[in-house]
Amino acid sequence: MELLSRSSARVTILDVARAAAVSRQTVSNALKHPERVSPDTLERVLAAIDDLGYQPSSSAQSLRSQRSGAIGVEVNTLGSRSHNETMAPFLGSLSVRASEHECHLVPFGSTTLEPMLGGYEGMWRRHLVDAFIIADTHHGDPRPLWLEERGIPFASFGRVWDDPTFTQWVDVDGAAGSRAAVEHCLDRGYTTIAYLGWSHGSVVGDERRSGWRAACTAAGPDVAGPQSSCEQDLDDAIRAATDLIRQLMPASAVVCASDVLALGVHQALLTAGRVVGADIGIVGFDGSETARMHHITTMAQPLSDIAGLALTLVHDALAGAPRPPRGTILAAQLHVGRSTTPHL
Amino acid sequence: MELLSRSSARVTILDVARAAAVSRQTVSNALKHPERVSPDTLERVLAAIDDLGYQPSSSAQSLRSQRSGAIGVEVNTLGSRSHNETMAPFLGSLSVRASEHECHLVPFGSTTLEPMLGGYEGMWRRHLVDAFIIADTHHGDPRPLWLEERGIPFASFGRVWDDPTFTQWVDVDGAAGSRAAVEHCLDRGYTTIAYLGWSHGSVVGDERRSGWRAACTAAGPDVAGPQSSCEQDLDDAIRAATDLIRQLMPASAVVCASDVLALGVHQALLTAGRVVGADIGIVGFDGSETARMHHITTMAQPLSDIAGLALTLVHDALAGAPRPPRGTILAAQLHVGRSTTPHL
Repeated sequence: MELLSRSSARVTILDVARAAAVSRQTVSNALKHPERVSPDTLERVLAAIDDLGYQPSSSAQSLRSQRSGAIGVEVNTLGSRSHNETMAPFLGSLSVRASEHECHLVPFGSTTLEPMLGGYEGMWRRHLVDAFIIADTHHGDPRPLWLEERGIPFASFGRVWDDPTFTQWVDVDGAAGSRAAVEHCLDRGYTTIAYLGWSHGSVVGDERRSGWRAACTAAGPDVAGPQSSCEQDLDDAIRAATDLIRQLMPASAVVCASDVLALGVHQALLTAGRVVGADIGIVGFDGSETARMHHITTMAQPLSDIAGLALTLVHDALAGAPRPPRGTILAAQLHVGRSTTPHL
Repeated sequence: MELLSRSSARVTILDVARAAAVSRQTVSNALKHPERVSPDTLERVLAAIDDLGYQPSSSAQSLRSQRSGAIGVEVNTLGSRSHNETMAPFLGSLSVRASEHECHLVPFGSTTLEPMLGGYEGMWRRHLVDAFIIADTHHGDPRPLWLEERGIPFASFGRVWDDPTFTQWVDVDGAAGSRAAVEHCLDRGYTTIAYLGWSHGSVVGDERRSGWRAACTAAGPDVAGPQSSCEQDLDDAIRAATDLIRQLMPASAVVCASDVLALGVHQALLTAGRVVGADIGIVGFDGSETARMHHITTMAQPLSDIAGLALTLVHDALAGAPRPPRGTILAAQLHVGRSTTPHL
């Protein structure tokens, strides 16, 4: 009852509009889009707001709509694993693009490395968010079904592998990306294209490897070089790359499943006294800060576009729109660094 | 009026408590701290919530308290600069620790690299947040005064350099950290300790350099090796380190102002065919993922503690507590990697 008695005394937007002699819309604009209001009017509206003690709170707005305007994003692994070179800038892109979608993000996390349903449940029970954006999906991921069973809207960066009826995802075309990487190396004059991929049989890894193989086969019988595999771990990548580059003649390049693996090739070349690019070319995958710092050519994931599409999918779901007929696949973008410059 | 008529029909927490034959506090616990409630009771409370259609919304809670429970954090530079190796995991730590403080974070950003007041203003005008946590403070930073003038509570990771009356900050002791780095190198048997710092005269940089100099002087007349400086940029660090290590005999170590500079020394040693650690030791500063990946010994910033203290400072400010008498300085923590192993 305390809530009601306070609420009934609340100053409304109409009181402000009357006091400032403007329309309700102008008050709304002054709050949300001050650039649309003339400086004089803005000052008058803000003075009225101060005089009346008006609280244009998002709380009142969301109580009315029963929505918080917030989208939960799990960040438990931020900074703790090399693949978060993707997650951290993705969160940055979501934060930047959220305002275009009139919503905001609420990151939440635990100290564990794996996604945890408990965090999602806590956010949802407290009504802190209307929906979630999940990332880093994998086979056996319990989150899509858990969210579906509760009727909680979500969108995913990464395919929902276990159930093709979930189509509200955005992902990057790994096969086309690796094909483009091979073609770039051939354009640059490298004649043998080796591959360093992941040892575990992930669908993402298989897809990226298949693109390398297809492009080499299409280019000629002797284009495909040796391939090797390792974990998504710099030490393991350096070990695998050290063996791999011993088998490579100059004018070879190594196409890699990720930027971490590409850095492994880079470090193995440095240690072996060979010149990155001029001797052996390298192409990574992801478009991470690591690739940028070490000037490694990479197939970049278009994170800003992915963030915008994921936010649109969530908004469509909240608006009750049916699911899209299929998931959205985006092309990786070639970012050329020094690692594919054959003659410096 | 629509708001009021809906609100008056709202099911209250007391209705749920009556239906489940528990106290109001138990309902609250079931929602916020389910681990404190027995499974039977939890099930009964959740069934009552479902039956009655109770909405324990944070909107109602925050309307009552006139607070959103949200703290804004600017993430514009996430993923776009090497120093975000600190910002991304700091945001992760804040996200994890926010639930202990019964609040949540709202990241916001722009596509520019520098902090922008416009983002703060937008968040505040829309009443999305009660307060801010700022990071990456620097001389001439307009944010503290801007927030102060508007009576907006905030806490800072990083000193508020321009005004000693702002004491609501947490920072790391750079001088003590560099001293500890020198002492660690001497303990490991390195006899000459060089320094690679930043060329710009930042207070943070000066402080870190002064700790190196003081520890070397305390250890003996011949302990301090040559010093050099560069930008916070890997290419520039590699260039400076390549010159610096030419002047160093084996059993020397290089203490660095950051992990990026330490990586520069690491790469210069690899390219020169020298063995990291066994030949020349390296200590970085920050405790970043880069240091971990490359096994570089580093003075780590205790980000989880910093996050917890910053959240406490914000809560104290929101509760109207006076400012603390002084800022909080924490010690950096030595994380030993292979880069200070003199004999492998």
